[in-house]
Amino acid sequence: MNKIQVALLGLGTVGKGVYHHLHTHQRIIERELGVSIEIAVIVVKHPEKHHDFAGEAILTSNFQVVLDNPKIAIVFEAIIGKEPAFTYLTKSIQAGKHVITANKEMFAYHGNELVKLANANHVRVGYEATTAGGIPIIQTLKQLFQVNQIRKITGILNGTSNYILTEMRENRLSLDEALQQAQYLGYAEEDPTNDIEGYDAFYKLMILCQLLYDRQPEWTSVKRRGISAITLEDILAQYSQGKRIKHLASVEIIDNQIEASVEPVALASNHPLFAIEGVDNAIVLEGDIVGKVTLSGPGAGSFPTASAMIEDLAIIIRSLKGSNEASRLIESASN
Amino acid sequence: MNKIQVALLGLGTVGKGVYHHLHTHQRIIERELGVSIEIAVIVVKHPEKHHDFAGEAILTSNFQVVLDNPKIAIVFEAIIGKEPAFTYLTKSIQAGKHVITANKEMFAYHGNELVKLANANHVRVGYEATTAGGIPIIQTLKQLFQVNQIRKITGILNGTSNYILTEMRENRLSLDEALQQAQYLGYAEEDPTNDIEGYDAFYKLMILCQLLYDRQPEWTSVKRRGISAITLEDILAQYSQGKRIKHLASVEIIDNQIEASVEPVALASNHPLFAIEGVDNAIVLEGDIVGKVTLSGPGAGSFPTASAMIEDLAIIIRSLKGSNEASRLIESASN
Repeated sequence: MNKIQVALLGLGTVGKGVYHHLHTHQRIIERELGVSIEIAVIVVKHPEKHHDFAGEAILTSNFQVVLDNPKIAIVFEAIIGKEPAFTYLTKSIQAGKHVITANKEMFAYHGNELVKLANANHVRVGYEATTAGGIPIIQTLKQLFQVNQIRKITGILNGTSNYILTEMRENRLSLDEALQQAQYLGYAEEDPTNDIEGYDAFYKLMILCQLLYDRQPEWTSVKRRGISAITLEDILAQYSQGKRIKHLASVEIIDNQIEASVEPVALASNHPLFAIEGVDNAIVLEGDIVGKVTLSGPGAGSFPTASAMIEDLAIIIRSLKGSNEASRLIESASN
Repeated sequence: MNKIQVALLGLGTVGKGVYHHLHTHQRIIERELGVSIEIAVIVVKHPEKHHDFAGEAILTSNFQVVLDNPKIAIVFEAIIGKEPAFTYLTKSIQAGKHVITANKEMFAYHGNELVKLANANHVRVGYEATTAGGIPIIQTLKQLFQVNQIRKITGILNGTSNYILTEMRENRLSLDEALQQAQYLGYAEEDPTNDIEGYDAFYKLMILCQLLYDRQPEWTSVKRRGISAITLEDILAQYSQGKRIKHLASVEIIDNQIEASVEPVALASNHPLFAIEGVDNAIVLEGDIVGKVTLSGPGAGSFPTASAMIEDLAIIIRSLKGSNEASRLIESASN
């Protein structure tokens, strides 16, 4: 069995999920993809905090260990924030390694740059996990709607906001009460700004926008409103009319201009996103041939995000099959 | 610009949709796929009925014209019923042509055989359009969930039944009244047996089953119930408890046995298929890493089905890029 060595950057919720499932699904990966995966190096900020975890992988805070190992063919990145993630991925790509990231903030800023760099270096960037968790929206748009022109996308892209809005309506909670509950359950960070002020959904929307239209609008020109100003009274007023307030991110092309927005909207019961509740995410895409297709599912969490990253791995390995690239990486790994 | 010649078998609702969109999307196909598509031959039972349609294509009832033309690289099949579709596709594959079909009954019976024959002949079979119309469920399962083990699939796979059930509930109609309305709107055939007795959903379920588990259960062992025995009273009784009756097709592996069924089921409002209304289709797939992901959208009709077939074309052309196969087909076509 040929072997591919990989590195894992970050060992938080997502990193642990990737580590776990690369082990539990080792045999399936071997059967489906014809290679075995070895996690050679794990890079974390504080190795001493993880001494009970690493198995056979080298656990280090020194990213250079990854760069110095030419046998490492693929780098999984599951760090929070733009840096050092962007620098690590840039250097990985320059060293001829494929990269797979779950880092939406970094990718909203630097995704286009990384993709171009990867093309120039004949490697691939997997970023399914940056947007809508386990829902395969990135690859659906890239691979499954190549001829359809996607005129518009509307999504619930932030599971925390959707959870809070659902709880407020169902249990008559104030925003603060619902937020505390979300924090207690691990759905929201201690500092919830990114989620409830709409930044998280905005980053994901910009990633979709770049993929669909090969450009992004000026960020400052995009209306970005979170749910922080929504009151229980607002929700009940809409509810009495059969409507639900949902936090929507949408982008469409109008007169060759990109129109994008992130904001709470009251939806009637016939809207495809009306029924998306709790921490789920969903995306409605409108293709000019197919019409409206909706994808929904778990928008975050260790397992769904790990799923997206490992399916990216499968796509990368499949794409290498038979290419010169493949033999270089796989053979060098099996030496 | 390189050119690929294709043939179209059948010029009913779906065939016309494919013909139309191959023309309207010619430039997009050229830009995205780097080839132009020429519909060289259209095979219909009664050419004299279509004399106002054909453009530059040869319109014929003689399928041999397709076989005799080595420049035809891809055959779109949009005929109803098992024969002559199966024979045509078998011969096309044996002649080294890729095939793309929308024919669910034929594919439920003969899909596995065609796929094996295609593998032996180094060509591809696209069958996205056989199942759930414009929803890309086949390619999602094939390409986007390679590592996830799909433990279970539950779907609303027959739009006609779903439309009838929705209309009965919303407008207090009898089954007969709702069926007549569906026929009037073109959602149901004059002979509605396939739809309302569950055969159509059953065929699609068997296609999904073959794809997922590489085998099918004994057809006679599968519970197949349509909606024909559902009364308005049944629907209202469930409605009074907040439930909706939906026609579900489901398959899962239990103790290494395939358990499949097609039947009406009363769903509570928290079920992901509760909100699927009218002629839409939807599928919930349960992956062992990702959890539940739902795809929904238009389950039938000229445009969504044409969309599925043309996206299959795109996937086939992309897969050929750089292969020997590609140069043989594309060059021969541009001679």
